[in-house]
Amino acid sequence: MSDGPGGLTHLLEADSEKLRELLEKLSVADLAGGWYELDDQQALKLFLALEQHTRGELIAELSNAEQKSLVAALSFQATRDLLEVMDPDDLVDLIQQVSPEIRSEVIGQLSEEVRKEAEFLLRFDDDDAAGLMTTRYAAIRADITANQALVFLRRAPEELETIYYVYVVDGLQRLIGVVSLRQILMTADEVRIVDVMERSIVSVREDTDQEETARVLENHDLIALPVVDRWNRLLGIVTFDDMIDVIREEQSEDIYRMGAIGGDAEAYLESSVARLIWRRLPWLVLLLLAGTITTNVLAGYRDLIARFAFLALFIPVITQTGGNSGTQSSTLIIRGLATGHLHFRLIGRALSKELATGVVIGLATGGIIFLRSFFLPPGLEGMEALAIGISLASVVFFATLMGCLMPFIISRFNGDPATAAGPLMTTLIDIAGLTVYFEVAKLLLT
Amino acid sequence: MSDGPGGLTHLLEADSEKLRELLEKLSVADLAGGWYELDDQQALKLFLALEQHTRGELIAELSNAEQKSLVAALSFQATRDLLEVMDPDDLVDLIQQVSPEIRSEVIGQLSEEVRKEAEFLLRFDDDDAAGLMTTRYAAIRADITANQALVFLRRAPEELETIYYVYVVDGLQRLIGVVSLRQILMTADEVRIVDVMERSIVSVREDTDQEETARVLENHDLIALPVVDRWNRLLGIVTFDDMIDVIREEQSEDIYRMGAIGGDAEAYLESSVARLIWRRLPWLVLLLLAGTITTNVLAGYRDLIARFAFLALFIPVITQTGGNSGTQSSTLIIRGLATGHLHFRLIGRALSKELATGVVIGLATGGIIFLRSFFLPPGLEGMEALAIGISLASVVFFATLMGCLMPFIISRFNGDPATAAGPLMTTLIDIAGLTVYFEVAKLLLT
Repeated sequence: MSDGPGGLTHLLEADSEKLRELLEKLSVADLAGGWYELDDQQALKLFLALEQHTRGELIAELSNAEQKSLVAALSFQATRDLLEVMDPDDLVDLIQQVSPEIRSEVIGQLSEEVRKEAEFLLRFDDDDAAGLMTTRYAAIRADITANQALVFLRRAPEELETIYYVYVVDGLQRLIGVVSLRQILMTADEVRIVDVMERSIVSVREDTDQEETARVLENHDLIALPVVDRWNRLLGIVTFDDMIDVIREEQSEDIYRMGAIGGDAEAYLESSVARLIWRRLPWLVLLLLAGTITTNVLAGYRDLIARFAFLALFIPVITQTGGNSGTQSSTLIIRGLATGHLHFRLIGRALSKELATGVVIGLATGGIIFLRSFFLPPGLEGMEALAIGISLASVVFFATLMGCLMPFIISRFNGDPATAAGPLMTTLIDIAGLTVYFEVAKLLLT
Repeated sequence: MSDGPGGLTHLLEADSEKLRELLEKLSVADLAGGWYELDDQQALKLFLALEQHTRGELIAELSNAEQKSLVAALSFQATRDLLEVMDPDDLVDLIQQVSPEIRSEVIGQLSEEVRKEAEFLLRFDDDDAAGLMTTRYAAIRADITANQALVFLRRAPEELETIYYVYVVDGLQRLIGVVSLRQILMTADEVRIVDVMERSIVSVREDTDQEETARVLENHDLIALPVVDRWNRLLGIVTFDDMIDVIREEQSEDIYRMGAIGGDAEAYLESSVARLIWRRLPWLVLLLLAGTITTNVLAGYRDLIARFAFLALFIPVITQTGGNSGTQSSTLIIRGLATGHLHFRLIGRALSKELATGVVIGLATGGIIFLRSFFLPPGLEGMEALAIGISLASVVFFATLMGCLMPFIISRFNGDPATAAGPLMTTLIDIAGLTVYFEVAKLLLT
């Protein structure tokens, strides 16, 4: 796992004989981990020095952008040979990186078996269970014996993604049971599979969203999960390692959403400046336009500000603190909804907790700003400091409730509650919070 | 996976005979998924209706708070029986939920084998690889044949967490190889394990952080990963399902950090109001105190504001937009650092991308606010609108650079770069951004 200065780059100084030797000592994970530091030419040189088999494993681990630039540099022949040795699920991902002009040509050149697998898998959506599955699973009939099953597995082609779960299908390819290799090993030779197989099968439908698929696999602690069509026919399996990738990907996307960044997770250095702008500017402009409403809100209090100039000095601290308390509240609710611990029907319990929390943190922050503005510069007078304190307390309380309710409301209308996290939330709180602030101040000061 | 209204609660209406029957049809995942909706009494009733074995599996899947309240309600005898059937890694997690007064008493009552395992595992830190491992792995000697290994595995006790990887140890318990069950099955009976085992073993040290451990398992697509001490002696294994939990946990904590919430990931409804306040108020107060610096910054521009009152109207939109663009930048850099695609030595490449991006989004947002404030209410004059536009462009550009540099700098000093995400970042940008805003405005207007 070490990745000192130099990394993979220094390998390139070796001559080609030595290079092959050095590369054999590295695992695919080591190669994939250091790949980002190579430029296109270096990457191509190293890649071509690898054995065909390692190439297939490595390219599956690279990011889409890395795959794309590598494939673009490979000859037509090299691309075909590469696809021929890859696992079908990885192969399909890669084909999608091949430029559309040569895609069908490449597919046409594949051996018939691989081509059929690829064409089958290419029918499904990327983000669905079926888009992540492999067709290389072990399947048997229910009426064979444990010993026959074991003999079958011992001779199973190496390409099978896993032989630790064996799927039992009927004559119509319908999934009727599952049995683990462990179970087979512990079963007496002559016992039939039908008598030991697990009949309550955990499976997902082909169009199950990838995030939901990952959660099913995770909740049941499975190494692999079968994917079936609507007639319960076995189409393929998804494996735990691909589901871990899904979890990581969704994690990045949640965090990007909170940071007001659009688009899919992708490696930073591989994004062009144009792409970086495209992922950021639309959000920024939207928030800016929403945010300019605050200008009009403030314009409505121009006279109040002119009379009590100190009020303007506290605008940033009011909006920032309101935004923070709203974000705290919405973050907790959103996580609860995402992990399944919260549901719309629990809105009452959540709201009562946030009401209580909001009162306490409102009073605490209001008290602190009162003391701070009374005793320290700008050293307000008692009544002025009190107005600031009470206003902040109200804004924080109000923002907390809004942060609690918004994710519930969005989820109720089948939106993604995570939309209520981060910048959109704070912009709305700015607008509402400033109104609360000036109304309270007006009430107390005039 | 369905979880309609009622969920587990309606089960409790059945009489105890019927209840057992209904429960048998539910998987542990179903039970754990619906557990949150039961109150303490209902949870206890359902739990006691389960078979001993299912109890052990279920409680391992519950959150710490759910475990705690359940264990507190169980009799001493029931707790002991429960611990006796659990996997050692789950058992140790649970023992840590037992109140300290009765903990040693409970441990003392366990059978000798389980007690020794528990005492061994309790020595390690929760958050380290060793704190998550199980001691129930399959280990063999190198000089046995493939057939002998298979016979051993067929008779292996059911308690072994996995038999799909078999670890090869020498006379001093040092890990010298690993062989998969699949490899054993494909090897001719009389071939010795030493001749087929994999010698370049991926393992982690006992004190490897859990997040790093998860990453190693993930990078190598392993079902289980051996944990060794500093003499390379095999201590136990961690399995992929526990590592998925670690990934989820770290994910929640990253998101909480961005939402200015302290403490570990825990279920929302199980947190008391006092606990919710404790996780939020310290951060809120810290940010408030840092944020009040803006008050003093603004106080320094009192004369300017008095002369050009319209400047105050744009304070919220300036700080919000600056904060958003800084957060976008820092979010991307932090994710890059977290996923390993970015390193400190790539700071130059990142900075040049952000410089270019910052110029474009600065000009775009500046242009928009110029047009917005010139043509729409409050309808500024040309020079005023220009001052606002140029100021915003400068703030956005400056915030983008700050968002890029901060995570690098924090990581350079071995801090957690994620600290630069979210509220702390925006508070600092508020302070710096307001200074930029008023200085630019002063330059243009006076």
